[in-house]
Amino acid sequence: MKILRTIPKNDGFYMPAEFEPHYGCVMIWPERGDSWQYGGYAARKAFIRAACVIARSERLTVLASEAQYNNARAMLPENIRVAELSTDDSWARDTAPTFLTNGKIIRGVDWGFNAWGGLVDGLYFPWERDRQLARKLCDLYDTDVYDMRDFILEGGSIHSNGKGTILTTEECLLSTGRNPHMTKSEIEQRLKDALGAEKVIWLPNGIYNDETNGHVDNICAFVSETDVVLAWTDDESDPQFERSSACLEVLQSSVTAGGEKINVHKLPLPSPVLITEDECDGLDTMDGLPTRTPNERLAASYVNFYISNDAVVMPFFCDKNDEPAHKILQGLFPTREVVGIYARDILIGGGNFHCLTQQIISP
Amino acid sequence: MKILRTIPKNDGFYMPAEFEPHYGCVMIWPERGDSWQYGGYAARKAFIRAACVIARSERLTVLASEAQYNNARAMLPENIRVAELSTDDSWARDTAPTFLTNGKIIRGVDWGFNAWGGLVDGLYFPWERDRQLARKLCDLYDTDVYDMRDFILEGGSIHSNGKGTILTTEECLLSTGRNPHMTKSEIEQRLKDALGAEKVIWLPNGIYNDETNGHVDNICAFVSETDVVLAWTDDESDPQFERSSACLEVLQSSVTAGGEKINVHKLPLPSPVLITEDECDGLDTMDGLPTRTPNERLAASYVNFYISNDAVVMPFFCDKNDEPAHKILQGLFPTREVVGIYARDILIGGGNFHCLTQQIISP
Repeated sequence: MKILRTIPKNDGFYMPAEFEPHYGCVMIWPERGDSWQYGGYAARKAFIRAACVIARSERLTVLASEAQYNNARAMLPENIRVAELSTDDSWARDTAPTFLTNGKIIRGVDWGFNAWGGLVDGLYFPWERDRQLARKLCDLYDTDVYDMRDFILEGGSIHSNGKGTILTTEECLLSTGRNPHMTKSEIEQRLKDALGAEKVIWLPNGIYNDETNGHVDNICAFVSETDVVLAWTDDESDPQFERSSACLEVLQSSVTAGGEKINVHKLPLPSPVLITEDECDGLDTMDGLPTRTPNERLAASYVNFYISNDAVVMPFFCDKNDEPAHKILQGLFPTREVVGIYARDILIGGGNFHCLTQQIISP
Repeated sequence: MKILRTIPKNDGFYMPAEFEPHYGCVMIWPERGDSWQYGGYAARKAFIRAACVIARSERLTVLASEAQYNNARAMLPENIRVAELSTDDSWARDTAPTFLTNGKIIRGVDWGFNAWGGLVDGLYFPWERDRQLARKLCDLYDTDVYDMRDFILEGGSIHSNGKGTILTTEECLLSTGRNPHMTKSEIEQRLKDALGAEKVIWLPNGIYNDETNGHVDNICAFVSETDVVLAWTDDESDPQFERSSACLEVLQSSVTAGGEKINVHKLPLPSPVLITEDECDGLDTMDGLPTRTPNERLAASYVNFYISNDAVVMPFFCDKNDEPAHKILQGLFPTREVVGIYARDILIGGGNFHCLTQQIISP
């Protein structure tokens, strides 16, 4: 593994869209007791179901700690590779490398990672295993790696249309816990250089009460070069209404790097999901304090889906909008089976299927 | 990774010779304080030199613990892959899988492992990480694995000529700490079944005071289908003389599975290597007791070499026999560079370059 300090864009590398062909995918076995109910036990069912759907059409590797390796290996089918590797949590989207290609080979980007805000408003401390993960994975996959550790970024805060356009949110990328020493235009330039892009579309914010400081991957995603889905509610009394409306406004007045209009498909949100007291009781404390409080609203969104080669894995919440959202996505992905998986226990962990996965693109 | 419980021989799989082409090699970064002086620091120089020679012609992966990963990654050149994986020590020969082929694909054998003798005369406790390693590596390398955990065997206790003949020692395979419930003929049958072999040549013993119960890989090795080197001393007062003579007698009266005579090339032993008090002071205790005592004779032998695709990595001991042994080996491996590496610090750890390596054969 070579560690590169050149600029990917100058080297001819760019980030393909998630809907382009994948070689494989990485996930991380849930275990952390202050994130996951019952030390991950509650989330396993949904995790395994998602893994099995993904592994139908991609080479899936699930990382597991030394302590959980045997258990993960026993619970996952044999077509899924399990690799022992230490992490601080399971959010492969944010801690695994972002893979780039020049059309011939792939390279990883090793972003700086500080647990979604470091000492300002990060979610745990320390985060050293997670910080190291991207580079370890590049070595494991025999890809060279761009050293971008001086720039804090999580994979969940960007989407690429594969043709030079990056979607992100101001709420996250301009947060004080990430790169406060950089201006918006410096950050934009960094994204373009790192992802081989021409244009960054800045949505103002993400989902209400999203502890990632509003990752874009929970509110808006490319489903084609010119089409996005946007998490939506018609309920004007919901604080999300204003947020989604602000994003819609930006999207409607933006064009892609190719100069094309963006088609926005509204994806209804589920009714607000509030964590119960019983669910909170299943979580470990952190430094003696609870990590969630009863009736806290979780950042539930159908947009947090993963696009595999032959499927789209989307979260279900036992909500009246599960089916309507599924129908919309299925219409937008006619060549893939859109699979809804009940994911309340994943949501309690702090994200959903997109957060749990990182695609390894085909060169 | 499929876990197989069939018989490799019946499936058409066999163990090639080490001198046949390799895809790659596995080594494990030294760290264990009661095996390695100064927690592995002393042995690193020789370890890295050997790794660099091997990586010239094979895809080398060095496994490192979570604690030592960054350090190993920084100290090893970029053409060597470093993978985080937990182990109990560094003897990849004994804990990594034995790879078999049917000429098309490779499969691993996951032997039982009990730290060279379990609770009878094993070298450490617990050995759980090492016991699990072979299967983890098969998964990492995407090879199916034969489950042979019911049979205790270390890779260092067998050599294959790639044409149906296995070399081993009675001292090791009939030791009470391994498979005492099995008769010699049952063990022989197990080896033939597992390694796709027709014949087992039983040498009586290994090197004097070898804590592995006389692994064959320290006393005798195939250098071709019909040629072996045998560790030798002409000093009749050395307890090794009787041991080597007994092996010679067996070899001279044996033929290969193919019915051919075995040519024995005597490889001189270095003068006895005794560990010093200073060296002992560099070792951690185990359960409060020293793991070595000053003036203890170590099982030094030039036979403990590794055959890579383009080189043979052999230990040197700053001994008058370094050069003569090197000359003999170079004569026996005309297409490879025989590289001598000063290896006293590896020897103190308990083995040498053959013990530190496990080849991954080309199918």
